Amino acid sequence: MTPAQALPAVLDRIDADLDRSLERLFELMRIQSISTDPAFAAQCRAAADFVAGDLRDIGFDTAVRPTAGHPVVVGTGGNGASGPHVLFYGHYDVQPVDPLDQWETPPFAPRIADLPDGRKIIVGRGACDDKGQVMTFLEACRAFKAVTGSLPLNITTMIEGEEECGSRHLFDFVKDNAAEFRLDFALVCDTSMWDRATPAITTSLRGLVYDEVKLTCADRDLHSGLFGGAAQNPLRVLAKVLAALHDAQGRVTVPGFYDGVRELPADVKSDLAGLNLTAEEFLGGVGLKVPAGEQGHMLIEQIATRPTAEINGIIGGYTGHGAKTVIPSQAMAKVSFRLVGAQDPQKIRDAFRAFVRDRLPPDCTVEFGDFGSAPAIELPFDNPALVKTRAALSAEWGKKAVMVGEGGSIPIVGDFKRVLGMDTIMVGFALDDDRVHSPNEKYDLASFHKGTRSWARILAALAE
Amino acid sequence: MTPAQALPAVLDRIDADLDRSLERLFELMRIQSISTDPAFAAQCRAAADFVAGDLRDIGFDTAVRPTAGHPVVVGTGGNGASGPHVLFYGHYDVQPVDPLDQWETPPFAPRIADLPDGRKIIVGRGACDDKGQVMTFLEACRAFKAVTGSLPLNITTMIEGEEECGSRHLFDFVKDNAAEFRLDFALVCDTSMWDRATPAITTSLRGLVYDEVKLTCADRDLHSGLFGGAAQNPLRVLAKVLAALHDAQGRVTVPGFYDGVRELPADVKSDLAGLNLTAEEFLGGVGLKVPAGEQGHMLIEQIATRPTAEINGIIGGYTGHGAKTVIPSQAMAKVSFRLVGAQDPQKIRDAFRAFVRDRLPPDCTVEFGDFGSAPAIELPFDNPALVKTRAALSAEWGKKAVMVGEGGSIPIVGDFKRVLGMDTIMVGFALDDDRVHSPNEKYDLASFHKGTRSWARILAALAE
Repeated sequence: MTPAQALPAVLDRIDADLDRSLERLFELMRIQSISTDPAFAAQCRAAADFVAGDLRDIGFDTAVRPTAGHPVVVGTGGNGASGPHVLFYGHYDVQPVDPLDQWETPPFAPRIADLPDGRKIIVGRGACDDKGQVMTFLEACRAFKAVTGSLPLNITTMIEGEEECGSRHLFDFVKDNAAEFRLDFALVCDTSMWDRATPAITTSLRGLVYDEVKLTCADRDLHSGLFGGAAQNPLRVLAKVLAALHDAQGRVTVPGFYDGVRELPADVKSDLAGLNLTAEEFLGGVGLKVPAGEQGHMLIEQIATRPTAEINGIIGGYTGHGAKTVIPSQAMAKVSFRLVGAQDPQKIRDAFRAFVRDRLPPDCTVEFGDFGSAPAIELPFDNPALVKTRAALSAEWGKKAVMVGEGGSIPIVGDFKRVLGMDTIMVGFALDDDRVHSPNEKYDLASFHKGTRSWARILAALAE
Repeated sequence: MTPAQALPAVLDRIDADLDRSLERLFELMRIQSISTDPAFAAQCRAAADFVAGDLRDIGFDTAVRPTAGHPVVVGTGGNGASGPHVLFYGHYDVQPVDPLDQWETPPFAPRIADLPDGRKIIVGRGACDDKGQVMTFLEACRAFKAVTGSLPLNITTMIEGEEECGSRHLFDFVKDNAAEFRLDFALVCDTSMWDRATPAITTSLRGLVYDEVKLTCADRDLHSGLFGGAAQNPLRVLAKVLAALHDAQGRVTVPGFYDGVRELPADVKSDLAGLNLTAEEFLGGVGLKVPAGEQGHMLIEQIATRPTAEINGIIGGYTGHGAKTVIPSQAMAKVSFRLVGAQDPQKIRDAFRAFVRDRLPPDCTVEFGDFGSAPAIELPFDNPALVKTRAALSAEWGKKAVMVGEGGSIPIVGDFKRVLGMDTIMVGFALDDDRVHSPNEKYDLASFHKGTRSWARILAALAE
């Protein structure tokens, strides 16, 4: 019996097992695995042990592997056959619970509640991020094992315990064990649906170039009465340079900046247009109304699939209360670029620095500071695993899954690509109202249940 | 005998009395009248008493008038006849002496020394600023009194004790006694010669408008990964606004900014051109080489008789070490304008604020802060007292006195104009190498001696 042939029975099993799968999730949610606070180290270990035990129950060979911080739970299991070998990544740690007095019920006492609109939700810290999401994958595996006696394909899990405090020991762990984890591709369940009805796959993450510009004119601060009109002012130079970064259409003017940036394929663009993301919806919550990005591109492109230049900070001269008539000696700005497609971080840093140097008048020198760079992550739209995943998701939800970009980076996904040469398919069932990292975190029961069913369908499809 | 007729004898008397006049100056210089440090309050009072006693010796009716700070020494004297009544302003307080270890001899032990080039100098705190300069005026009065039995014209002196700490009680003193001090014009001896050979009269002081601009976009700081490309960034708006303040020729672009700005008369411009102020000379000492002001105007105009716009400070976003991918909610800049001629501070502030508002995109609001304004001070080149003063100075030094502008303001001169409606003629004999406010302050013996003779000639001319 192939996984695809077993799928109907596996889905039935998931439906029938829902109450027990919730009990397992609740047991994990009761463990106070707050990774950033050393006082909870034993609880983090307990959560790792729980996940390891559950993986063993399902049939994985499992080890709780030490790092310099909280351990990583690694499980391996398969179907005793060939076919793809995938890495599943998630995390068992959670965010702190402050402010505690804003929780309606204790954060580590999970419960089912009803929303006024009729939705049933799971409430508690980690309900969504990431315990609930991780368990959708494990429950799908469990159902396959129960129905067919084996996993639908070869799977290695990597469930870490430091995602909420920067994954700082995971990068070395991945590097040190690269041969073990260099598999066919990775699956990550830590992202969102587009909305309650529309499943989503995150297919791109923007990259980053972060630079610092420090300008120096005179060798000391000058009095603007005595020197004003004759001395070069680095704040004036800085304003001219930074104002030149964007043209009137919001495009970045650094020469060569758009090398490697491609327009989205017409069908993807059409799908995104159909989502009809409005400025009111996206910007209204932070007091804004009008998209300020590149003209000629939809808001949803501006925030995810188009590159940007941002001034992240400026300082120079007198910034205290009242007046000081100073022409400062120095001025500093921090400038960063979000990258997409094949934009080359080093070429962009070099081009930006040349752009600044080209605009320096006499009597003005510049020093630069490099504070990080990463290329964009982009899954080709025709990646076979992506195509299968999309079809499986669409079948479960009865609506075409959308392929979206994320505006920021997810560092471990970058490492999978750079260190292991491995693509990642990001699928998750979080919703915008899940209050992730906040009091009264929740996960829709539908996200948990249909999420589990989604993974069963995806695993069956990937096993083809 | 008119003052003019008496002048040759008065000048002879000054020459003959030089040693004793130096003794008087030294006695004043030995008093540690550091006004900013409360520990020296008694010494400030002693300096006021010394000046009052000296004025009495000369024949002035004198009073040490209290303020909420150090007292003001007011003397009145005359020639018993009609003619102009002038106000002479100076100060008896001095700057602190730190760093004391850089003084070659104790700061309050005045002495005569020789420079390698043969110049004789008076060394000590206050040698120039302003004890030496004040005494040039008093010694000229003393010589007139000795030779003719009276002062050459009606004179009121106002010698204050808080110039080095902001004259903060003098403004009220002037306002409260406006009727007493509203005289024909003021004389101030606290400025410089052009160079050792060239006497100078300061005929203009630039005014000031100081404004603060605070821009707000989103109602909180945003993550540039999530919002970058869609959210308006106030630092970008600020850079665009500030970069637009000057055109490529260095002219200020705020509409109406140059209303009330006149070109210098051809003869004055020609005199200034003859001084041949070089960038190397003026800017070399602070590490600069190229005048950055309005093209088409001489450096000497850029720093004194042309208006400016300067960015005095900017702050916004992340300015610490390293990277933070923030789009800040707010950004702030301090901007000031130096004014000349008849530029109207209020109109310029209004025009600047309109200029900023005109450049705000949607989702960006502005708040302004008013941190001071003052119109420029300008003595008409054909002012009769100025013409007489210039001729007298030129006669003493054997070289045409130049009329120069000062780039910054001298607040009390502004008050004389605004509160008392009175013009000020600023004549002084300081030199660029006098180390005013620094260790080893000096005053050329020639400045003291020929300065005294200059005042004798000026007073005689003004009495005509």
